[in-house]
Amino acid sequence: MRVSLLDHGYLEAVTFWGSEEEIISAARMSTGKGFLGWGPFHHETCAYLHALIAYMEGSSDVASPDQVPCDCTPKPGDEKLLRYLWENEHHTPFEMAGATFEVQAPIFVFREWMRHRVPFSYNEMSARYTPLPDLNYVPSMERLALGSGSSKQNQSLGGKGLDREAAKEFRETLVAINLVIEGIYQKALRTGVPKELARLVLPVGRYSKMRVSSNLRGWLNFLKLREAPNAQYEIRVYAEALHKMLAEKFPRTLGLFEEGR
Amino acid sequence: MRVSLLDHGYLEAVTFWGSEEEIISAARMSTGKGFLGWGPFHHETCAYLHALIAYMEGSSDVASPDQVPCDCTPKPGDEKLLRYLWENEHHTPFEMAGATFEVQAPIFVFREWMRHRVPFSYNEMSARYTPLPDLNYVPSMERLALGSGSSKQNQSLGGKGLDREAAKEFRETLVAINLVIEGIYQKALRTGVPKELARLVLPVGRYSKMRVSSNLRGWLNFLKLREAPNAQYEIRVYAEALHKMLAEKFPRTLGLFEEGR
Amino acid sequence: MRVSLLDHGYLEAVTFWGSEEEIISAARMSTGKGFLGWGPFHHETCAYLHALIAYMEGSSDVASPDQVPCDCTPKPGDEKLLRYLWENEHHTPFEMAGATFEVQAPIFVFREWMRHRVPFSYNEMSARYTPLPDLNYVPSMERLALGSGSSKQNQSLGGKGLDREAAKEFRETLVAINLVIEGIYQKALRTGVPKELARLVLPVGRYSKMRVSSNLRGWLNFLKLREAPNAQYEIRVYAEALHKMLAEKFPRTLGLFEEGR
Amino acid sequence: MRVSLLDHGYLEAVTFWGSEEEIISAARMSTGKGFLGWGPFHHETCAYLHALIAYMEGSSDVASPDQVPCDCTPKPGDEKLLRYLWENEHHTPFEMAGATFEVQAPIFVFREWMRHRVPFSYNEMSARYTPLPDLNYVPSMERLALGSGSSKQNQSLGGKGLDREAAKEFRETLVAINLVIEGIYQKALRTGVPKELARLVLPVGRYSKMRVSSNLRGWLNFLKLREAPNAQYEIRVYAEALHKMLAEKFPRTLGLFEEGR
Repeated sequence: MRVSLLDHGYLEAVTFWGSEEEIISAARMSTGKGFLGWGPFHHETCAYLHALIAYMEGSSDVASPDQVPCDCTPKPGDEKLLRYLWENEHHTPFEMAGATFEVQAPIFVFREWMRHRVPFSYNEMSARYTPLPDLNYVPSMERLALGSGSSKQNQSLGGKGLDREAAKEFRETLVAINLVIEGIYQKALRTGVPKELARLVLPVGRYSKMRVSSNLRGWLNFLKLREAPNAQYEIRVYAEALHKMLAEKFPRTLGLFEEGR
Repeated sequence: MRVSLLDHGYLEAVTFWGSEEEIISAARMSTGKGFLGWGPFHHETCAYLHALIAYMEGSSDVASPDQVPCDCTPKPGDEKLLRYLWENEHHTPFEMAGATFEVQAPIFVFREWMRHRVPFSYNEMSARYTPLPDLNYVPSMERLALGSGSSKQNQSLGGKGLDREAAKEFRETLVAINLVIEGIYQKALRTGVPKELARLVLPVGRYSKMRVSSNLRGWLNFLKLREAPNAQYEIRVYAEALHKMLAEKFPRTLGLFEEGR
Repeated sequence: MRVSLLDHGYLEAVTFWGSEEEIISAARMSTGKGFLGWGPFHHETCAYLHALIAYMEGSSDVASPDQVPCDCTPKPGDEKLLRYLWENEHHTPFEMAGATFEVQAPIFVFREWMRHRVPFSYNEMSARYTPLPDLNYVPSMERLALGSGSSKQNQSLGGKGLDREAAKEFRETLVAINLVIEGIYQKALRTGVPKELARLVLPVGRYSKMRVSSNLRGWLNFLKLREAPNAQYEIRVYAEALHKMLAEKFPRTLGLFEEGR
Repeated sequence: MRVSLLDHGYLEAVTFWGSEEEIISAARMSTGKGFLGWGPFHHETCAYLHALIAYMEGSSDVASPDQVPCDCTPKPGDEKLLRYLWENEHHTPFEMAGATFEVQAPIFVFREWMRHRVPFSYNEMSARYTPLPDLNYVPSMERLALGSGSSKQNQSLGGKGLDREAAKEFRETLVAINLVIEGIYQKALRTGVPKELARLVLPVGRYSKMRVSSNLRGWLNFLKLREAPNAQYEIRVYAEALHKMLAEKFPRTLGLFEEGR
């Protein structure tokens, strides 16, 4: 499962772990019951689930929800508990699932990404050990027309709205300077400048590559910040692709996340 | 996969994620190559792997290990890189795998367990929401004969060596007081004392239950501290069971861990 | 600065670090200016601060706020930026200050407290190394009349409302059982049961002691969860005392926190 | 307290918190005693401290070290406990102190620095919000003669040893390309390219600025990795300056750190 992003980037799912069933099971630790099931739930009739919710809301008048038998058929309906967890910010059960991705993106995108510390893990290609491939991000004409931030904020962050001519010129300048820089980089490597110093000329628009792993709680926080309208377009592109991949594996949770925005 | 531990405890594997192959792939991010393979590696002949190791050790004289072709057949041998990572404390790739367990153990064991903060996630049964089942840890005669800490430290931590008679008496006292406490607890619940206060009488030897998740780096650190000879016997029992389960899924890594002790 | 809490507990401030000035300075890193000053700010006239806020809101039309001179006298008014940070959830600058406390509280309170993992640090008295002093929490009559959760939730969490007689009986039972337990504990220690096992009988209402440290962001999150109406009364008492101590040192930040509830 | 580093960088101490006395006090939580004192300790005569160490080593035969009176004069000598903590990897007490710094360094140095996640906090200047000042790292002739890694590893990491001529040429090329890049950057900003995109041309040798905070345990781990001979020269320069500043405030701890290498 790999999607291409920007001009030379990509996002690829490596591993998902846990499941929405395990999120429910973990949350149920507090009262001792496990995952009951998804799907059609006769909420007029299931006394147990009512009692459980009443309990967690603090409005119950029984000593324990477990004293109330679950006599309805079919008994599932754990969507309701998942929603309760999400809407009341009981986030720890969402740490029981997660995902690892491989990402190729420009360095300035990685710089923003790595501001996420806990619970993220990173392993990135190092220009100290291997020459970075000659891939550089050159924004498209459409991107340059966007300005910064969201389409509502075309004028923001110092972008006064870029006309077609200026955009074209910036693109051409980028392509040209990247050629020059690559020439300098290769020559430096050839003449014996250590890779760790030759890289000094590489621009933050250069592509790098990494594996990144986090639990689902971390990813949802990432999406909250990086899909926001004031996030930079380039990282938003990655966040939106991530969102889609997570939604395939954890559809109910991402559904709640979308509702909550 | 569930094993019984102590008198009423257990450890059950819920989920493993990632793999030793992914640990290698993540480590290879730094030089751009992925997982090559395990198994018989003709190290006299594989120029690439030699060059790679030389690189990471800083004794290489080529511009990049990728310039050196891997021409040997068969080419695997990634055990060597795994060992290099472990022995040189490059621990971040070991964050790319992990495991979730369900645990039933006495509260005092959970208290030690939860000193592990990053990268651990916990969801525990709450005596505030549900009455704790009447399960209490009563150490066996063999355990009491052990004293505290390891068998080498029988006399330590205030244990002057417990004779058979004193051990028998302590066990009987525990059983008796637990009966009394359970009576008080049940009566308090019956007469309307809120669960969150009725629990005040519950001893730290009472069993509770939780789900706990961490990446492999976290688990290896847990094993290092909790399998040590000066760790308390009760948590060591859980650590050793964990060790076995992890070793089935990540045999090479646990092998290196065992060597390193 | 030590306050007594519950029947035998206390909270004592050990160290505060950083300041609200440093929070501002850290936030200003993003645009290069440092702390300007608190106090009366002529917001009709200070062009620079207007430009800065416009910038961070993404509605600026200058290339950099630094191009706009701050010509007004007096120029302070950094309350405005502090408010902006807080209200827009830019929480990282609040990691530049923090506090360490010494706390004596019942074990069940510590158990809730230690669910806070990042960025908290703990050093607790260990019943494995030293016998816990004979201090046990016995809720007051007023506390028992409260029921669980907030006063609005008297009936919740299994507390059906405790009449005076039942409350009195529960208190007397607690005092009696604690006497019995202490007798068993002391005898076990005397007859050579290691401290790490003798403690099995100690109830979660027993007092322990710790030092706990966190940055201000962590403490504010702690207050959010532990001062909430559905938090248990006993930890709320500690949270409220903490709140007061933090408010003396970081008055503007706690003011914003209070507003936001 | 600010020191200049590299050609345009600096390190400045903003705040220290906690103290070695508080590290001791936190460690003493486990047995209930506080900080006793530094200085000349008659270890032939102080029964209490002997008992305490014996305890923590698990070789004691008294029920509690607190039963042993400290009758010697003078009684201090807490260096001994500090050493015990350090040498036995009891690291949590070292989380009770810490420091915040302001740093100006090239982006590639920040990229390595920010691999340290827990317990570090960062606030960095953002090229999205403010144009980065025209400061670029150009390695000195001496630095270029060093090669990569430590002086023992002149030949490593792809550096075949740089002769004077090649070094001079690389420096001149860097200066020239930085001039060109700055021209492109300024023109892009002038013609309305948003700052968040104009920055694409900025090289990773460009200086940025940040505030960074961590507890002492985190800083010691930073020093261990970044003062190592195989760390890159540029980050080693910052680590060594940090080391000196920390040693002024926490001399005994840094002394133990130095011994342990």
